[in-house]
Amino acid sequence: MPEWKNLDKLPVYPKLQAHKGQFDLAKAMSGEAGASRVAAYQVPMTNGLVFNYAAKAVDDAVLCDLVELAKEAELVEKYRELYNGAVVNTGEKRLVLHQLTRGQLGDPVVVNGVDKREFYVREQKKAALFASKVHSGQIVNEKGESFTTVVQIGIGGSDLGPRAMYLALENWAKVNGCFRMGARFISNVDPDDAASVLMDIDLGRSLFVLVSKSGTTLETLTNETFVKETLRKAGLDPSRHMVAVTSETSPLAHSSDYLEAFFMDDFIGGRYSSTSCVGGVVLSLAFGAEIFQRFLDGAAQQDRLACEPDPMKNPDMLDALIGVYERNVLGYPYTAVLPYSQALSRFPAHLQQLDMESNGKSVNRFGEKVDYPTGPVIFGEPGTNGQHSFYQLLHQGTDIVPLQFIGFRQNQAGMDLMIQGSSSQQKLCANVAAQIMAFACGKEDANPNKTFAGGRPSGIIVGDQLTPESLGALLAHFENKVMFQGFVWNVNSFDQEGVQLGKVLAKKVLAHETDGALRAYSELLEI
Amino acid sequence: MPEWKNLDKLPVYPKLQAHKGQFDLAKAMSGEAGASRVAAYQVPMTNGLVFNYAAKAVDDAVLCDLVELAKEAELVEKYRELYNGAVVNTGEKRLVLHQLTRGQLGDPVVVNGVDKREFYVREQKKAALFASKVHSGQIVNEKGESFTTVVQIGIGGSDLGPRAMYLALENWAKVNGCFRMGARFISNVDPDDAASVLMDIDLGRSLFVLVSKSGTTLETLTNETFVKETLRKAGLDPSRHMVAVTSETSPLAHSSDYLEAFFMDDFIGGRYSSTSCVGGVVLSLAFGAEIFQRFLDGAAQQDRLACEPDPMKNPDMLDALIGVYERNVLGYPYTAVLPYSQALSRFPAHLQQLDMESNGKSVNRFGEKVDYPTGPVIFGEPGTNGQHSFYQLLHQGTDIVPLQFIGFRQNQAGMDLMIQGSSSQQKLCANVAAQIMAFACGKEDANPNKTFAGGRPSGIIVGDQLTPESLGALLAHFENKVMFQGFVWNVNSFDQEGVQLGKVLAKKVLAHETDGALRAYSELLEI
Repeated sequence: MPEWKNLDKLPVYPKLQAHKGQFDLAKAMSGEAGASRVAAYQVPMTNGLVFNYAAKAVDDAVLCDLVELAKEAELVEKYRELYNGAVVNTGEKRLVLHQLTRGQLGDPVVVNGVDKREFYVREQKKAALFASKVHSGQIVNEKGESFTTVVQIGIGGSDLGPRAMYLALENWAKVNGCFRMGARFISNVDPDDAASVLMDIDLGRSLFVLVSKSGTTLETLTNETFVKETLRKAGLDPSRHMVAVTSETSPLAHSSDYLEAFFMDDFIGGRYSSTSCVGGVVLSLAFGAEIFQRFLDGAAQQDRLACEPDPMKNPDMLDALIGVYERNVLGYPYTAVLPYSQALSRFPAHLQQLDMESNGKSVNRFGEKVDYPTGPVIFGEPGTNGQHSFYQLLHQGTDIVPLQFIGFRQNQAGMDLMIQGSSSQQKLCANVAAQIMAFACGKEDANPNKTFAGGRPSGIIVGDQLTPESLGALLAHFENKVMFQGFVWNVNSFDQEGVQLGKVLAKKVLAHETDGALRAYSELLEI
Repeated sequence: MPEWKNLDKLPVYPKLQAHKGQFDLAKAMSGEAGASRVAAYQVPMTNGLVFNYAAKAVDDAVLCDLVELAKEAELVEKYRELYNGAVVNTGEKRLVLHQLTRGQLGDPVVVNGVDKREFYVREQKKAALFASKVHSGQIVNEKGESFTTVVQIGIGGSDLGPRAMYLALENWAKVNGCFRMGARFISNVDPDDAASVLMDIDLGRSLFVLVSKSGTTLETLTNETFVKETLRKAGLDPSRHMVAVTSETSPLAHSSDYLEAFFMDDFIGGRYSSTSCVGGVVLSLAFGAEIFQRFLDGAAQQDRLACEPDPMKNPDMLDALIGVYERNVLGYPYTAVLPYSQALSRFPAHLQQLDMESNGKSVNRFGEKVDYPTGPVIFGEPGTNGQHSFYQLLHQGTDIVPLQFIGFRQNQAGMDLMIQGSSSQQKLCANVAAQIMAFACGKEDANPNKTFAGGRPSGIIVGDQLTPESLGALLAHFENKVMFQGFVWNVNSFDQEGVQLGKVLAKKVLAHETDGALRAYSELLEI
């Protein structure tokens, strides 16, 4: 059994702190030594991906201590605990089983007589069967017409992950002949969100996927009622247009309001649920269950690699350790995620939830306040767009922001053009390579306004192409990275108590049970 | 003539620093004193908007010193210099005239014999006339069919601002009978971006707006060629489908490749160009020129209010000063922008460019390194979505992130439903009110995991509804806020030298003129 200790109680912690200010990134990345670093400082992931950390502010001495940190924090042992079914989510007293939605890493996990792997696979098969019936025209609308659009109603993890995954594969699917149905998403309780989607689709040929684990999420139930009312007004029968993704014990689980219900459980956190039926139903409807399975396989392979005890061969763990070094030794409070792929346009928004909701905590898993910073702020937009936006601050601002690039050698749509001797894809890749070097090495100039200080660290994940498999591996990489960081910080990465207070106060406002400033704000907003 | 001094050279600077740690936000916002604060700590903007800063970490003593700061930094005098045509963009030796695209605040600004206000108005009228001809069917495609879609090709300020403004008004226009054409945007050099849009539209009935001030932007010219090639392959004549927005001296200005060219100039920075023809052509095509004019009027009114010398009556200046206090006294390195309006889904991305590209600088306007932090990192997503995502860290993370809320009493689409005694719009507003209080006051709990420290500052801009006028005012508010902050920090908010080095290195990569690490990265990416 691993011991759960705070980061600053580990023997290696002061040794790590001693590295601060010792390393010159600009120098290390210059000349032929820089080229050697690029060759040496990388570790293969799976599905053609590689994690290159040459432009991170680490050297062999730092890496050596990070390896020691991984040992002292017993990262791989804790991961083993997790996938073998220990109650790792201590706050809510729950197992953490999202890896089990895509593979079996350890012992069978049996809860109340149910083998959980079998349970998740069964629900995936149910989703696959349902999707194939929709695609083949066995399940149709009131008029016997096939469905052409799927609309997911969910918020947080029921929205961000599945939406990012859908956008990541939409063009790939179109080009590769497996685009079955367009997907849309309704999440915000702002009624303009639902109105906007409902104005824009063919209601009669739309299938709605209602996603709420508890069956009690305010936004989702409100939007469900909104959608049902709109369907009724259009002379349609909501129960012919809607399925539910929920837990078996929720009020949505066994209701004639839905064509079908697909189950998840309390052991899959919302932000870790893209590989459960939360992502599975909408993605199987959009692209076919085979594509969703390929996505799961990519994630499963990455999960398996994350079992490797040596961080130097385990990209998920190494990325996590370098991130901890940047946060707790170098003191950077944020990380920018910069995918050079338009298909990953909403991947940073997913990672923002995944990372900040998991590790934005001030108490350790025993409820004691920690004395060091935990999860950073995550933000990002696709490159090259970001270059023409906030990169100015990244290059020349007064503070250093660590960077996480992602790039692919090939584009998805296969449409490209040579212009001035290079293709758009080459221009895209040239830009990410150039940015890494500009950030790392900077440039002196007689004009201080044109001077770049450099010394701004980045890592890059490079792949051949964004496919279902590499997307699955990418998703799992970041899930595992966040998990390992949570282990190092000794926080519970799987609850989110910070979302509760706002909910309680919002209910008071709606019940007009407020006083003081809350009443004053309610009046200002004329609620 | 105002004197341009560094912030830390102003007499009030040490007085401001002395306030650190003196103020207890949770206490100030509790009980009836909190209600009084909400009533007192607000200042009217224009077009029905109000800026409320009750939940900011300031008291009367701080505000008094911020008023002094505004005087010592001569903010209103510098603004006057700017709108009267001084060379405020010192690095590039340019005037800064975006306010002139929507009104005349001071003396006529004449450059080379041209009255610039007249020039901008002339181009707006040209855009209005062009849009009306498209709408009335005078300008049609090769087959005599009307155009149904407008596609903007641009990047950075030619994309983010116009896109955010389009999304902000799309539903409003649909409901109010002034939706003329759907708009799409192509920005990224990633060929999948253009491919995705081109696969999804009716090419023959699409009109493309090519936006590049210099006429040399790599991404935009690459995408132009991509689009033209696609049009030709579809048997269409690109010159019948494309207009240009550019400067009069650019290679695009007088070309038979375009149906029409609309002009801007070097005195309008990209990130400040939404109210120029950069936003004007696409928005006039989408919604009609009258709607664009209403948007300009809203911005003009806010600009005029920003001339008010007393910061306590000038919301743009006050917001700026409080932001400086948060950055340079309280030491917060970021700000989250959280609009409770789905229509503002991309407004944070626009502000991210506006703010970070303007004030992410390390040298003052004389090229001397400054000794204090300048522009913060800006990120955000619409509420309530963010509540189910990164708010966990905002509430319970180890670091404090200042917050900027935006909320409206009414939604845009007018579709809403009472569910459990309240409408969706009421739920939305209740949530933003609740969040402000949860962040400010927190909550003690026997379970430390459920404890909220509070003391997390926020401001809110409240309006009746997001309309063309209030959107214009909102846009101008943030432009003016960023401008005033730049004055305080004594940086040039109107250049962006930090984007240059990456461009130079990318060209080297494409020319295969690299060595060392840059060559190694090029090989890794197989360029």
